[in-house]
Amino acid sequence: MTSTSTTAQGALVTPAQPASEDVGVRQLLERGRRLSTPALRSAVERLAAPMDTVAAYHFGWIDAHGNPSEADGGKAVRPALALLSAEVAGADAEVGLPGAVAVELVHNFSLLHDDLMDGDEQRRHRDTVWKVHGPALAVLVGDALFGLANEVLLELGTVDAGRATRRLTRATRRLIDGQAQDISYEHRERVTVQECLEMEGNKTGALLACSTSIGAVLGGADDATADALETYGYHLGLAFQAVDDLLGIWGDPSSTGKRTWSDLRQRKKSLPVVAALEGRGPAAERLCQLLTDDAKKSQEQFQEFQESEFAERAALIEEAGGRDWTAEEARRQHATAVAALDDVRMPDRVRAQLVGLADFVVVRER
Amino acid sequence: MTSTSTTAQGALVTPAQPASEDVGVRQLLERGRRLSTPALRSAVERLAAPMDTVAAYHFGWIDAHGNPSEADGGKAVRPALALLSAEVAGADAEVGLPGAVAVELVHNFSLLHDDLMDGDEQRRHRDTVWKVHGPALAVLVGDALFGLANEVLLELGTVDAGRATRRLTRATRRLIDGQAQDISYEHRERVTVQECLEMEGNKTGALLACSTSIGAVLGGADDATADALETYGYHLGLAFQAVDDLLGIWGDPSSTGKRTWSDLRQRKKSLPVVAALEGRGPAAERLCQLLTDDAKKSQEQFQEFQESEFAERAALIEEAGGRDWTAEEARRQHATAVAALDDVRMPDRVRAQLVGLADFVVVRER
Repeated sequence: MTSTSTTAQGALVTPAQPASEDVGVRQLLERGRRLSTPALRSAVERLAAPMDTVAAYHFGWIDAHGNPSEADGGKAVRPALALLSAEVAGADAEVGLPGAVAVELVHNFSLLHDDLMDGDEQRRHRDTVWKVHGPALAVLVGDALFGLANEVLLELGTVDAGRATRRLTRATRRLIDGQAQDISYEHRERVTVQECLEMEGNKTGALLACSTSIGAVLGGADDATADALETYGYHLGLAFQAVDDLLGIWGDPSSTGKRTWSDLRQRKKSLPVVAALEGRGPAAERLCQLLTDDAKKSQEQFQEFQESEFAERAALIEEAGGRDWTAEEARRQHATAVAALDDVRMPDRVRAQLVGLADFVVVRER
Repeated sequence: MTSTSTTAQGALVTPAQPASEDVGVRQLLERGRRLSTPALRSAVERLAAPMDTVAAYHFGWIDAHGNPSEADGGKAVRPALALLSAEVAGADAEVGLPGAVAVELVHNFSLLHDDLMDGDEQRRHRDTVWKVHGPALAVLVGDALFGLANEVLLELGTVDAGRATRRLTRATRRLIDGQAQDISYEHRERVTVQECLEMEGNKTGALLACSTSIGAVLGGADDATADALETYGYHLGLAFQAVDDLLGIWGDPSSTGKRTWSDLRQRKKSLPVVAALEGRGPAAERLCQLLTDDAKKSQEQFQEFQESEFAERAALIEEAGGRDWTAEEARRQHATAVAALDDVRMPDRVRAQLVGLADFVVVRER
């Protein structure tokens, strides 16, 4: 892993074919945010009080006291993909806007509920909604965002909007399935790499897949085109998640906004961990022993661990090959994603931007 | 109120024009349950483990240990309405089946989440899902049922299914708005009758409205017909809720499955309470004083109240006119519901059954 972990940009993974900076990925993300935020805000304004305020807090538009703020609202990869996908179908980016809003609403519905279910107290360097506004409103506002997502699409009243909503509904159900798997895996002693990939495909892949097809569907693309775009988005999601799992152990807290060894502290069975445990040799054996003992400890005992104890586990995961395997997996998923675009006719600029986005996702800084 | 509270059947409200038993309301409800249950079960079977099991527990198909059971799954008024509404449009009842399943899924999504938010430990004489399976699964399975509802409709792939989903989405958002109002009213010292009716219209009226239009829409009815049916369903919902509010104070625990003075124990600002508080005279004043003091008490202090203290509050509500006003309101809503049917052409039998259902809702035994 030294070759990838010591690149100039501090990236954890380098794709086989890095794109040039010229395709303007940052501008693309910026466009996604610029176009979708006003539409998202006006959708959220439809919510009855106090749900509108709670949602505005979640999105970072106001602080906990209700004062305007400009907190980090996330990378907005999904809206950017939705707008770009309309251009795949030859339509204006704006045609994908209701889709961009809908996927972002569903994404944030799942964040609200997942944070509550997982007991996570921080998101994007701020207290989570249930911490600030209580569990009831976290449930309710999540529900409202879910409903709003369907509403925004269906009120277009077109056949294509119905098709788009159906894809979104399917993706949302997979998102929920993924969270169910995630929760049930927590109570299991052992999870296979295959199970982990399936869970991550549901939790992350399905909605990124839908984000990449929804604008195209609204722009009149046929189902074969939409399916190929979903293949791209799905594998993009898995690449994204593999990188996220690397960042969850070896990421720099100042960029990730999480503590050091974040996923290890949560005893998360992420890809590097499960891949390492499937390895053979003394490092895998020692790791297995340690994690089995860890599982018996209470959350309180575990929180008292020294930095060196997490560092030991991270080193064993790396020695047992979990880090290399995950970085390699990110590259494999990246390649599969990009290859899926071969099946779709689209303007060269749009293709270059989709490839650029895939590169961006994989080469995120730590 | 003596005339209504002492009828032979023990009903709390008698409608102005009681329907004969001949229209077969019980058979109608039975048909709703018979047709919708298998479809509902096969929809729920799509859920990933352990959500399928948790949902099956919620619906009463299995007990907390996973053994088959036949617990009370509720009256199934919504599926019965959805099937009947297909017949309004001249279609077979079965055409309304996906709609019947969808509204029942949304209804149960809201029960799962509301029980968690409200901390209710019992529903239909059984422990609620969050009590048995924990809060995380109550959130997640609720989400899954919500998603499933849209999926069941949208996979029909027709324009009418898109229209039906749009109505369902709108109703679901109102349901959520209603729950938000309900929660926020709890923290308010005073709620007006108007606010209470608006909340109940959202929480109960909107989904009953949708239940009454969804089968018709799937059967090809135009929007004007669907809107008139929604008017019937909305006011039916308000009539239902008024009766529910009467039962919540004066209902017989052996029929309601709740404790005596159930709504008073929860300090619920239900219709009889808010109507009584809007009255003048010594009873209203004394009630206002008592409830203001009650609001300052902790839940623990409140739970130690004697039966006689609740009986005193119930008597004051009655004396201040809250009981009479609510029974009268149930009759008014019943009449408005039935009158809305005048605008819709439909077979005589179907009309008689819709009227019969409205009567049934209002004349429920205590």
